[in-house]
Amino acid sequence: MTTLLTPDELEAKLRDIGARRYHRLHPFHHLLHGGKCTKGQVQAWALNRYYYQAMIPVKDASLIARCLDGEVRREWRSRLVDHDGNAAGEGGIARWLKLTDGLGLDRDYVTSLAGLLPATRFAVEAYVHFVAGKTLLEAIASSLTELFSPAIISERIEGMLRHYDFVTAETLAYFSVRPPQARRDSEFALAYVKENAKTPEQQALALKALEFKCDVLWAMLDALHHAYVAPKHIPPGAFVPDE
Amino acid sequence: MTTLLTPDELEAKLRDIGARRYHRLHPFHHLLHGGKCTKGQVQAWALNRYYYQAMIPVKDASLIARCLDGEVRREWRSRLVDHDGNAAGEGGIARWLKLTDGLGLDRDYVTSLAGLLPATRFAVEAYVHFVAGKTLLEAIASSLTELFSPAIISERIEGMLRHYDFVTAETLAYFSVRPPQARRDSEFALAYVKENAKTPEQQALALKALEFKCDVLWAMLDALHHAYVAPKHIPPGAFVPDE
Repeated sequence: MTTLLTPDELEAKLRDIGARRYHRLHPFHHLLHGGKCTKGQVQAWALNRYYYQAMIPVKDASLIARCLDGEVRREWRSRLVDHDGNAAGEGGIARWLKLTDGLGLDRDYVTSLAGLLPATRFAVEAYVHFVAGKTLLEAIASSLTELFSPAIISERIEGMLRHYDFVTAETLAYFSVRPPQARRDSEFALAYVKENAKTPEQQALALKALEFKCDVLWAMLDALHHAYVAPKHIPPGAFVPDE
Repeated sequence: MTTLLTPDELEAKLRDIGARRYHRLHPFHHLLHGGKCTKGQVQAWALNRYYYQAMIPVKDASLIARCLDGEVRREWRSRLVDHDGNAAGEGGIARWLKLTDGLGLDRDYVTSLAGLLPATRFAVEAYVHFVAGKTLLEAIASSLTELFSPAIISERIEGMLRHYDFVTAETLAYFSVRPPQARRDSEFALAYVKENAKTPEQQALALKALEFKCDVLWAMLDALHHAYVAPKHIPPGAFVPDE
């Protein structure tokens, strides 16, 4: 990329990455939302995705830790509040554990990470390292998958409640509170990227960062699909569903 | 683990991890060595494995960089020589590129990493981060997959030469020189681990480190298998074979 895009052109290119590479398009999500998963597959999804949820505040804190702009730090801090809450049992991670509880997974087993797919661990940690090591602009741009999450979440809640008798609105509480948070966060991040990607090189880095993040989410589902959708290839040591 | 193992008991447990979890057992290797891969699949394997090879000296240098024992640094330095050689065109990475050349892959494309599976990148970088961030004992223990590599390499050379007309002894030169290097390196690393894992906790960490490394190699093949063995699931942006 050698020409400078206008902020709106940059936004259009960012949204186009989502339209082509966001994990809403992944075959595993079609199975999950379309009622085609077994309970064991839903368990495996929730168990693996738990690690992603658990590392989000670590990722966000590492972004705050390297940010010299108090306004950005203050704004970004709301993400810590959303995920960690103000007391034990509150916040997004606690709500995710209500989902794994509701699916019949032992909480100590989930939080021990003992059954995690290694590929999930590698993808999540790649994201954490990316945010800790790249420029602040790239770190913020990598969060922009949230631009696309409200649509997938409404699809997920609707599809999972309709198709699975082992899922309830209460166990899906994580998702019901997320869309307004995601909208607020992604609006801030998008405005930041549009304002601070001032050269063609910076714009290219911001676009690459969003592609990278789409790759992280996609790779997590690829690993899940490979391990748990027939023909199953569960790697040594990972969670083996009862059914 | 709460009891202290003798050094030989520790070695037996390390070797047992290899017997159960080393990627010689992975279904993709059965296909590769048994002549069941298409040329495109062999290309995808070589292209992805290139990134692993390319990062090995980075991993080894980061180990040397945190080692305060000159004897270990001196010994470990031979790994840099093996992979980087003493001049352009020499060493393991250059020999790996002869393999990708021989398979008809464009060298600039290979080294650009443009077609790499994201999951390959995440797994390889997890290994690099592990070695840079864990204790020296764990970093050294994670190299012990080399204990098991001479067997897989002879199986590979023999199988690939027999089954694939697009592979020659010259293109497989990487492998023909590796076994004595791997033996020398793994003997040193094994002796180090046996001598320096002096508590049950250290022994447990050494065993975990080798499991981790087996997971890295396994996850790389899982990603390859999922993407390139039917039903193919090639993620957005990754290498698409002609055939």
